[in-house]
Amino acid sequence: MQANELKLAAGEGQGSEPLIFKPLGIDTWQEHVIYLHPDCPVCRAEGFTAQARVQVRIGEASLIATLNLVGAPLLDTGEASLSASAAQALEARAGDVVAISHAPALESVRALRAKIYGRRLDGAQIDSIISDISAGRYPDVYISAFLAACADGRMNRRETVDLTRAMVHSGERLSWSHAVVADKHCVGGLPGNRTTPIVVAIAAAGGLVLPKTSSRAITSPAGTADTMETLTRVALSAAELRHVVERVGASLVWGGALNLSPADDILIRVERALDIDSDAQLVASILSKKVAAGSTHILIDVPVGPTAKVREDRDLERLEAAMRHVAGAFGLHILMVRTDGTQPLGRGIGPALEARDILAVLQRTVAAPPDLRERSVMLAGALLEFCGAAPRGAGEKAAGQLLDSGAAWRKFQAICEAQGGLRVPGEAIFRRDIVAPHAGKVIAIDNRHIARTAKLAGAPMRQVAGLEMRVRVNDEVRAGQPLFTVHAQASGELDYSCSYALAHPAVSIEPH
Amino acid sequence: MQANELKLAAGEGQGSEPLIFKPLGIDTWQEHVIYLHPDCPVCRAEGFTAQARVQVRIGEASLIATLNLVGAPLLDTGEASLSASAAQALEARAGDVVAISHAPALESVRALRAKIYGRRLDGAQIDSIISDISAGRYPDVYISAFLAACADGRMNRRETVDLTRAMVHSGERLSWSHAVVADKHCVGGLPGNRTTPIVVAIAAAGGLVLPKTSSRAITSPAGTADTMETLTRVALSAAELRHVVERVGASLVWGGALNLSPADDILIRVERALDIDSDAQLVASILSKKVAAGSTHILIDVPVGPTAKVREDRDLERLEAAMRHVAGAFGLHILMVRTDGTQPLGRGIGPALEARDILAVLQRTVAAPPDLRERSVMLAGALLEFCGAAPRGAGEKAAGQLLDSGAAWRKFQAICEAQGGLRVPGEAIFRRDIVAPHAGKVIAIDNRHIARTAKLAGAPMRQVAGLEMRVRVNDEVRAGQPLFTVHAQASGELDYSCSYALAHPAVSIEPH
Repeated sequence: MQANELKLAAGEGQGSEPLIFKPLGIDTWQEHVIYLHPDCPVCRAEGFTAQARVQVRIGEASLIATLNLVGAPLLDTGEASLSASAAQALEARAGDVVAISHAPALESVRALRAKIYGRRLDGAQIDSIISDISAGRYPDVYISAFLAACADGRMNRRETVDLTRAMVHSGERLSWSHAVVADKHCVGGLPGNRTTPIVVAIAAAGGLVLPKTSSRAITSPAGTADTMETLTRVALSAAELRHVVERVGASLVWGGALNLSPADDILIRVERALDIDSDAQLVASILSKKVAAGSTHILIDVPVGPTAKVREDRDLERLEAAMRHVAGAFGLHILMVRTDGTQPLGRGIGPALEARDILAVLQRTVAAPPDLRERSVMLAGALLEFCGAAPRGAGEKAAGQLLDSGAAWRKFQAICEAQGGLRVPGEAIFRRDIVAPHAGKVIAIDNRHIARTAKLAGAPMRQVAGLEMRVRVNDEVRAGQPLFTVHAQASGELDYSCSYALAHPAVSIEPH
Repeated sequence: MQANELKLAAGEGQGSEPLIFKPLGIDTWQEHVIYLHPDCPVCRAEGFTAQARVQVRIGEASLIATLNLVGAPLLDTGEASLSASAAQALEARAGDVVAISHAPALESVRALRAKIYGRRLDGAQIDSIISDISAGRYPDVYISAFLAACADGRMNRRETVDLTRAMVHSGERLSWSHAVVADKHCVGGLPGNRTTPIVVAIAAAGGLVLPKTSSRAITSPAGTADTMETLTRVALSAAELRHVVERVGASLVWGGALNLSPADDILIRVERALDIDSDAQLVASILSKKVAAGSTHILIDVPVGPTAKVREDRDLERLEAAMRHVAGAFGLHILMVRTDGTQPLGRGIGPALEARDILAVLQRTVAAPPDLRERSVMLAGALLEFCGAAPRGAGEKAAGQLLDSGAAWRKFQAICEAQGGLRVPGEAIFRRDIVAPHAGKVIAIDNRHIARTAKLAGAPMRQVAGLEMRVRVNDEVRAGQPLFTVHAQASGELDYSCSYALAHPAVSIEPH
């Protein structure tokens, strides 16, 4: 710490000339960039060059940004501009004075390098890395290297506990007065597997307290938060969440707005770019959110299948052992439930399309996908038993009754109303069927190709984009029969997705 | 390949409106960025969002760039701008028509993920990754994850051979008519260890053919190319290099301009950001350059010391075994020489300061650092013997005579003249001594702290920046006596470097 302070002092002590903020309106998404004139006094005095990492301060707020150089006429030597994300984070207004100094040398980078070289990290080292990540001090290449260095079992259980704790410490923590605070989570990897909103509605109708916070998609076409956002407001503050749970006993919100384990959200952004999700990261990501959310009893749905995230039972056993070890370290009760991950669940894949399936199940319409209904009832039943709200062996029946009676649908409406009102999800303008090239029987569906096709169509960024499955494994199909329909909001995305689908057939059909 | 073509066709088939290039002069260093208006027809039709990776084409030239969005007044909906590096690579001029499509989905990313998950890669998979990296199709987060996934022995020898071959195939190859084409390399990690120019001058004076190509610094304050650039022109074309070697028998050029193993240069840029350098990468990096340069006999200097890159003899043995295996696969003869890596060599650390030491040794002035002279003569002698230009056991004596007679200095001058003329390196404006806090004996010097201090002073980007060592291990010092002098071109950099030096003492002094 002392070294960092010294360096900052050195940077500031040089009497950097004041720079004035000039908005240029450059949107770099989540990467913070500062734009300076190459001949500005700060660049000259401090020796900054393009791509340097610098500390930027406006008033009391500061962040680390990447430096890009911009000459006249866009910027004068006394001006500085910021990318949209940086301007927003610093609440910059035209004319504000911008102070710049060298980014502090990050001591945690030694720990990062040690991990890349296969060494074990202690709690303090992991804390230092996670603390720098949460504070936005790591460029993406560091985060990417950290994730790769920790993948494939290169983090042991003790490190995973330390990582989880560091992630909890990186943000806020909720606490509840109830002895049992239930939660339900799915490790993911199965397109369309959107049981959470249904399970929460049933379990809450059955009397459980369930302040559910969800994340957005990591590598999938939709996360529960993305799907719920097409139905209601999900970005609630902690006070609003507390109010909702006090009123209706449960919630279905996005965790990102609550600052629970914020390091996780940053890690997830880079994981999404890499399309990876390792055991240790998965355990720490899930459990840090649960510890921070104040949950006590957590049901974890693990779909197992050759193209799901968890491919074999032995992978499940390894994951369950890691999950139990870390949960135990924090006094959490967990119940892992193995489910069938051989093909997508429900019909819709993508935020709005999945939301329609959920509404159909809760409203008990003929459009309700039977597999989504069955799995939701089974999981809700298991959760009711696990939390003592139903006798052993009687959970599934109780859950079915709560759904069939309309109690779950009423609870779901109450949750959405409490969060800001229930709305109808939109529909895509552009649609195209992908058809069977020949007649035969569907023998397999590749979840990864299905997910990728949905993502290329625009999911989850475009709420209405994704796929609508038209067949399931063991179905008989004719040549030319639709296998799935691609939904998109832009014609380019429709073409892109369909081109991929044609080049990578996701539905295997065995001719007769 | 078919899938990629399909996708590109899909992107182009949508009749993207022509966009006109408007220079904005934004310098993002080596990262390619394209700037578009958020409402431009291409963004709307293709569904592009900020940070998407897109394929950009002007005429026949194309590259992959990251998309940033910029609104009016900087850009209209029919305009596109490019970062300085992208504009240069595409030779863009104001008014050029810019065509944009979705970046092809990269099949090699499957191989990258497999490696992150600890799987072995075959030659085709490694080729696909290196080919995408060379073509600029990987964002930095992918490269970073690849490097981290391959570090710490997670690449075996067969993979290292395949990596080396893929890197050679990524660029040009030189060939020479001589049976013996000598080369000299240092694995690095020892600040100031700039023996290469002296060894090349001696060995060439002794009759060896030595078309030496060097890289710039990876994680050190200077690479041989950085140092030579303060003395002469180093960015020669292949034809110019051939002309120089035909005329004077040797060269001291930067390899980067020759397109030898260009993937290596991209990997090195990200390695530099991460400050890592793994065995497999090190072997593939060194040997791919040598194979591409057409060398047959290579002396590799390996400094070993507790704070050098290679810390212990067993690390050297492991590296040597990997190096021999890969060299054997390409028919290269290598001689690894272990040298003392316990403290910096010579006095100067940083491009211009090291160049001054080199001139002093070659010119045999009183300022010549004895340790740099001795080590250079030893290595040149070993190379002369290894290549059959001196009898066994007589190499060092022959090398000493070539230096003392002025033959090596004349050869060095001839090389520099052939490359474009010998010039005098510059000097820094800002200097400050770091002094002994108390009297005693110097018992150790930390190469890493020394290197970091020199880098914070601006080396290697600022040629004149770096350190001048004023003591060596075992020296007796008084309180207040200078241990080293920091040289910088900007006062901010001088302060920054000195602050670090004070917080991280590099010279350990044992009081009496």
